Amino acid sequence: MLGRLNHVAIAVPDLGAAAAVYRDTLAAGVSPPQPLPAHGVTVVFVDLGNAKVELLEPLGEDSPIAAFLARNPAGGMHHICYEVDDILAARDRLLAQGARVLGDGEPKIGAHGKPVLFLHPKDFCGTLIELEQV
Amino acid sequence: MLGRLNHVAIAVPDLGAAAAVYRDTLAAGVSPPQPLPAHGVTVVFVDLGNAKVELLEPLGEDSPIAAFLARNPAGGMHHICYEVDDILAARDRLLAQGARVLGDGEPKIGAHGKPVLFLHPKDFCGTLIELEQV
Repeated sequence: MLGRLNHVAIAVPDLGAAAAVYRDTLAAGVSPPQPLPAHGVTVVFVDLGNAKVELLEPLGEDSPIAAFLARNPAGGMHHICYEVDDILAARDRLLAQGARVLGDGEPKIGAHGKPVLFLHPKDFCGTLIELEQV
Repeated sequence: MLGRLNHVAIAVPDLGAAAAVYRDTLAAGVSPPQPLPAHGVTVVFVDLGNAKVELLEPLGEDSPIAAFLARNPAGGMHHICYEVDDILAARDRLLAQGARVLGDGEPKIGAHGKPVLFLHPKDFCGTLIELEQV
């Protein structure tokens, strides 16, 4: 079921500073900041060739990463995204195994324009997992 | 400087349970547990095709992940490992930029038998970064 590692999302309090760390200190390729109001974040993509890091800064009220940054004011790894071929089959398999899918269990269109679901960290080693259908 | 994303390490309190989550619930390919006494962990590798997840359980006294698990008893993402071509050149670039390298600044042989360094989370968006020379 589990496919490739698509990205690791790092929540940061200051996106400009975080992008500078990756661009200047680590000499990685970074995108311009992209506001995603529907997702409550502004994102900078770090291209690592085989996968991405996504630097996320809260955007607007009720950002989904606001609580995480309140607990981790310096930032930190927020979630890991794995690819799946069929997100509904993946969801049904997970539910049948007793794992919890966040929200109403219906895939939403994620930041890459593809269907995504988030899984409960308590069922996955304390890690927030995003599944993205590719 | 920054190459591919090599792995994401997830510290877990119970490696058998964590391996079962990835093998059975998520249907991923997982290795047998490999004790690495020199590194103070037992590791299960999760093969995602383009990158790995490494599930780490403390092994012996003074495990480097013991303090993290004391703060995060359910587990969580512990570090992210990026590849570099030349770890000494990478280190010197980082030090010249004012970033902090952990320990004495000399690369150690990591869990994959290759030279590694760890970077201070406070200089890298709250994220513990491992650099591995490949």
